[in-house]
Amino acid sequence: MTGKRSQAAKYVHGYSATEAQRLGDQADTLAELLHHDTLYPAGARVLEIGCGVGAQTRHLLRHSPRARFVCVDREQSSLAQARAALAADRGGSALTFVRGDLFALPFAPHSFDHVFVCFVLEHLDRPLLALRALQGVLRPGGSVTVIEGDHGSAFFHPASGKARRTIDCLVEAQARGGGDANIGRRLFPLLTEAGLRDVTVSPRFVYADASRPRWVDGFTRKTFVAMVAGAREASLRLGLIGEAEWAEGIADLERSALDDGTFCYTFFKATAKVG
Amino acid sequence: MTGKRSQAAKYVHGYSATEAQRLGDQADTLAELLHHDTLYPAGARVLEIGCGVGAQTRHLLRHSPRARFVCVDREQSSLAQARAALAADRGGSALTFVRGDLFALPFAPHSFDHVFVCFVLEHLDRPLLALRALQGVLRPGGSVTVIEGDHGSAFFHPASGKARRTIDCLVEAQARGGGDANIGRRLFPLLTEAGLRDVTVSPRFVYADASRPRWVDGFTRKTFVAMVAGAREASLRLGLIGEAEWAEGIADLERSALDDGTFCYTFFKATAKVG
Repeated sequence: MTGKRSQAAKYVHGYSATEAQRLGDQADTLAELLHHDTLYPAGARVLEIGCGVGAQTRHLLRHSPRARFVCVDREQSSLAQARAALAADRGGSALTFVRGDLFALPFAPHSFDHVFVCFVLEHLDRPLLALRALQGVLRPGGSVTVIEGDHGSAFFHPASGKARRTIDCLVEAQARGGGDANIGRRLFPLLTEAGLRDVTVSPRFVYADASRPRWVDGFTRKTFVAMVAGAREASLRLGLIGEAEWAEGIADLERSALDDGTFCYTFFKATAKVG
Repeated sequence: MTGKRSQAAKYVHGYSATEAQRLGDQADTLAELLHHDTLYPAGARVLEIGCGVGAQTRHLLRHSPRARFVCVDREQSSLAQARAALAADRGGSALTFVRGDLFALPFAPHSFDHVFVCFVLEHLDRPLLALRALQGVLRPGGSVTVIEGDHGSAFFHPASGKARRTIDCLVEAQARGGGDANIGRRLFPLLTEAGLRDVTVSPRFVYADASRPRWVDGFTRKTFVAMVAGAREASLRLGLIGEAEWAEGIADLERSALDDGTFCYTFFKATAKVG
């Protein structure tokens, strides 16, 4: 989301090709866990907020091929990537990309039946206002689906205070930009306070050990550790940690993806209705 | 488990009537989540290790009424309570209580088809040896089921460093007695190293918010906060925390069971086979 009225925080993960790859891996590994029960009927008007490079959009389309999607992002380059990436997969789906700001959406009231928001609220300094803004373009009785992570939910074996500090660096870097990387646990109070009703939170627990190599590689290594590692420069620049301590922490975190290591993380999926 | 050869750590939670009530509440709330998929066939010889006051035994019987249970504990008083508590619920089930030590079991090799161990390994200073000892009374191909918590998995809203410190006190008190309150995340490597095969770990995630009052009251309040609160004297005696800091931490923890609070905890259930 961009624009003069934007209250969005700086996107801590950046927009590099590596980051796009990370988001793609993440979406593939997690898709079934996060999206299998998001099913929009034929003709439903669905607004995806913060579609980025289309990592989640692809799975939305797969599960709801006859819904009509409008996908919004504030970054033109991300939208271009999403458009290109989905050209082959979109089939006959109705799919429109719109550059826009969550807080100044170019849509009339009641334009949509459903809003889908994935990994967006964590980057905003006013998530409550965002949820209120979204209700403005939903019809009465329309649904809101929000998916967020919670980095404070991560725990692993072998336990390591150094590894924990690298995660804390990412959380702190995101907080300095106005975001909240631990927002998952807050979805229930947030959606409730935003005036939504029938708020239901469904945690999605990720567990990886050597008997689940797809999760170890796809999630622990390529999603979580890659994400924390991606905050190295910001963490050093902000003086949150020293280079040596950082390297040791990341090594310990990587250790949880080896041999007898285990790794746990919780995503939160919330659904609610408008008024 | 008791006896001269016992390597069990001191049982940190004690044996009070309040504690027995806590264990009963805990078992009722969690029973379905933890035990619904433990189903032993008619005639199966099942050894429950560390049955305590029978909190889990009741659910084992309910799900497998035609299996034959031998329930072992080192505390005679606990066994008496279990026997009394289950008198009405046991129906026609074959159920025997035996006082004994995990490390000196009074059973011949191959006496059992299945072993069930719930909230026991966390209290032992040699859980690996315990798992090896149990294999001695199982027939080849027999199964081991282990259920443990992991206090480091707990996170909540509002987040509170003070509340976290009260949890850390319980973890530390248990560690000083030789136990590991964060053992859940280690079940995969432990069972694997113990020589068991087909090790499968199934995390059981507990989530409580105001839309799930049964979990808020039965788990957050009556199970988790009650458990942490129960370690007050030990924590103060060991000098892990001051009285005022403790009170503030518990108050913050209780806050997660009020209004817009949320609470998350993960149990781990592991199954494996012998030889």
